[in-house]
Amino acid sequence: MKKVICLGLPGSYSHIAGENYFNNKEEFISSESFDGIFDAIDKKDAEFGILPLENSLSGSIYQSYDLLMDKSLKIVGELEQKISHCLYMKGKGEIKRCFSHPEVFKQCRNFFKKNPHIEQIYFADTSSAALMLSSKGTENDSAIGSPRLTKLYGLKLIEHDIQDNPNNYTRFVVVGNKMNKPGNKVSLVFSVENKPGSLFRTLEPYSRLGLNLTKIESRPLFGKPWEYIFFVDLVLKDHQNCLKTLLAEMKEHVNFITVLGLYKKGRIYES
Amino acid sequence: MKKVICLGLPGSYSHIAGENYFNNKEEFISSESFDGIFDAIDKKDAEFGILPLENSLSGSIYQSYDLLMDKSLKIVGELEQKISHCLYMKGKGEIKRCFSHPEVFKQCRNFFKKNPHIEQIYFADTSSAALMLSSKGTENDSAIGSPRLTKLYGLKLIEHDIQDNPNNYTRFVVVGNKMNKPGNKVSLVFSVENKPGSLFRTLEPYSRLGLNLTKIESRPLFGKPWEYIFFVDLVLKDHQNCLKTLLAEMKEHVNFITVLGLYKKGRIYES
Repeated sequence: MKKVICLGLPGSYSHIAGENYFNNKEEFISSESFDGIFDAIDKKDAEFGILPLENSLSGSIYQSYDLLMDKSLKIVGELEQKISHCLYMKGKGEIKRCFSHPEVFKQCRNFFKKNPHIEQIYFADTSSAALMLSSKGTENDSAIGSPRLTKLYGLKLIEHDIQDNPNNYTRFVVVGNKMNKPGNKVSLVFSVENKPGSLFRTLEPYSRLGLNLTKIESRPLFGKPWEYIFFVDLVLKDHQNCLKTLLAEMKEHVNFITVLGLYKKGRIYES
Repeated sequence: MKKVICLGLPGSYSHIAGENYFNNKEEFISSESFDGIFDAIDKKDAEFGILPLENSLSGSIYQSYDLLMDKSLKIVGELEQKISHCLYMKGKGEIKRCFSHPEVFKQCRNFFKKNPHIEQIYFADTSSAALMLSSKGTENDSAIGSPRLTKLYGLKLIEHDIQDNPNNYTRFVVVGNKMNKPGNKVSLVFSVENKPGSLFRTLEPYSRLGLNLTKIESRPLFGKPWEYIFFVDLVLKDHQNCLKTLLAEMKEHVNFITVLGLYKKGRIYES
């Protein structure tokens, strides 16, 4: 069995994404931090890592992009994971306190408007909130986290999907230390010359080659007006040949360009 | 004096941004939530609001974009505010606990690697962490937040700029209920037809008119592959005329297009 390293404790959305992608057939280990995932693969403590790259409610996760740019790991796969926040308790008491991450509370504002007496207690992640509820919680405590926490931590599911916006998905990528060949989707990062129209000229080959851009995002270097890097994902038509042509043409207009990974376009997992 | 509504308590980065933009000449009031800012302006409890739109380390803040798309308020100004995390105490004891937002702790990982004995206590925002330290903290407690908390909450500054990455800026926008005229920067949101090359055709007028794109970002509608909206900012050359031409040309290629605001390109505030 290969080892796959995921953020947070078992039951975190990152662990769920890993289990879904690998069909639960590998051994899953935990990292407290984004860097920890890269370090573990560098040291061969794990073969693959699961990294959140963007979320439908909060956008791109620059910390992941920065590590992909700085370190030598490559994206070798991807998936979209539905985020479903569930409310748990240990017993049946009246809820007086709730444990979770501040961002999760923000995503469940309607629930707390209806239940203003419940005190919100902040944790670094949803899986450690569930662990705390399980190990030290009282019968008036609750926690919010993924659908898988109930079995893992012996908790009682009180309510499913308590988030305000049901369209809550995270795109996770699988990272490893070898570039995949072949793949039908590619992630690029590049910077363009500091001239009007540079970006447009850089994108011209995409259009001419009939490629589908699935993401484009400029990231400003704040404090340095007019300096940007761009994150671009695109789906290839005839794989490698097309990518070679594209990269050769783009190189005429960019300061630098890095292929973050070549991989099979992923699917959506609802739970 | 006009009333300006900002996120968090006085001393929050949002309040600092507001004070900088308005040269500290207006009355600043506080909102606990993003929606609260829009509600207050709707009800005429405030004339302007300060909304974080993107951060150099964490990217675009979709919650702000969603409110700008859904509600009738417009962007009337902008500024870039440096984020400088400072460590505070009440007295001179050995630090055993530290209060702040989980995201702030993540941005100060090196400090906590050097000081692993310090327990991190999570708060919803930096200003409420400072208030807690000030009102109920012991001599072994500390908090992390903006440079202005020291005076406001009678705290002692222990260390300046403890964040790992000094390139930490938030772009705030000023929102109000009337569109500005004139301005030299415009923020747009649009969706393009679901065909290869649509985005490219939509951007063609920018290039031909010699406009400077300062931001482009696709936001996927997860669960609906190939459906996107785009956020675009651009600096105009000859103001209104140019914008009229651009919008007329873009309308031929988009499903919808909304002008989020027309405003004067903002400056950078370092503190």
